Amino acid sequence: MKPFAFCPHCATPLNEAFIDGRDRMNCPKCGWVHYVNPLPVTIAFTVNKNNELLVIRRAHEPAFNEWALPGGFIEAGERPEDGCLRELYEETSLEGSIDRLIGVWHRDSDVYGSLMVVAYRVIAAHERIAINHEVFEAGFYRPDNLPLVRIPLHRQIIEASRWP
Amino acid sequence: MKPFAFCPHCATPLNEAFIDGRDRMNCPKCGWVHYVNPLPVTIAFTVNKNNELLVIRRAHEPAFNEWALPGGFIEAGERPEDGCLRELYEETSLEGSIDRLIGVWHRDSDVYGSLMVVAYRVIAAHERIAINHEVFEAGFYRPDNLPLVRIPLHRQIIEASRWP
Repeated sequence: MKPFAFCPHCATPLNEAFIDGRDRMNCPKCGWVHYVNPLPVTIAFTVNKNNELLVIRRAHEPAFNEWALPGGFIEAGERPEDGCLRELYEETSLEGSIDRLIGVWHRDSDVYGSLMVVAYRVIAAHERIAINHEVFEAGFYRPDNLPLVRIPLHRQIIEASRWP
Repeated sequence: MKPFAFCPHCATPLNEAFIDGRDRMNCPKCGWVHYVNPLPVTIAFTVNKNNELLVIRRAHEPAFNEWALPGGFIEAGERPEDGCLRELYEETSLEGSIDRLIGVWHRDSDVYGSLMVVAYRVIAAHERIAINHEVFEAGFYRPDNLPLVRIPLHRQIIEASRWP
C-alpha cells in the first residue's frame, strides 16, 4: 500500500510524525492523522447438507486460478456475518445460514496490506451455484476429492474448522 | 466520519461514483477509490486466578467515566491477539495470555463510524495494575460487587463469555 501523500480533507501535503506510538502521516494544517488498521475480511467455510465443502477457483488476483474458500471485504456498517453471506451470494448465488464462528486471523497481503480475517462455518440452503466474474468454477467436494487448496490461510481455516 | 474531499495520492477533488455496489468517493484523475471498512477493535475480557473480572473506568470519550472492559484499535500488521494484550498492557500494565476467542461483533460508533469488535478472554499473569491516562481506575471484581457496566456491547461480551 502506497502511503498517503496529501490530506484527504484539505489537500495539504502530509508529514510523517510519531503519534500514539507509531510513525503516521499527519496533516500540518488541519491535524488529520492517517491511522492505518487491518482491513476486515470475511471467509465463508460453506458446507452442504452432506457436509461437502464448497471451494471456488479464483478468477482474479491475488491467488489467481487457485482453489479457495469464498470471501471478501466487510463493508462499513455491515455485520461480519452479513458480509460473509453477502460475499458467498455474490460469488456463487448460494444462500445459507451462519452455523458458527471458526476464528479470527491476521494476514499481511502484498496487494491489500494488513488484513484481519474472520471465518464462519456456513450451511448452504441449496446447491444452485451460479458463479460471478470473480470465479472460474465452484462446487461442493468430499474430503477425498477436494481440489488442492494452497493458500496458507485457507488451509488453516479448513484445519481449524475440524472438517469433515 | 467526514467523507474524504481530496485524493490522498494526487490531491485532486474527489467525486462520488457508484462502484462495486455502493456510492464511494473516487478520484477522477488517478482512479483511486475510497473503500470504507469497519475499523477493527479488540476487547480484553480479563480475569485473575480467582476468576474476578477486570473493569476500568474510562477517562476519555466515547463513554467518558463509564465502567468498561479494556481495549482499543488493532494496528496495521498486528495479530488481533497481540493487539488485545497490547491494549490491556497500555491501559493497566497488566500482562496476560489469551485463553480463547469470545466472539466478533459490529458496532456503529458516533465518534469512529463502523467498528468490528473482536473480544478475547485473557488470563492475567499478575495483579500489579498501573493505569495510564485513558483510565480513572481499574480493578478485579467478583460478580456480586462488579460496578455497573452500561456500554451495551460490553454487556453483550460479558454475557457471551458466560462469566462467572
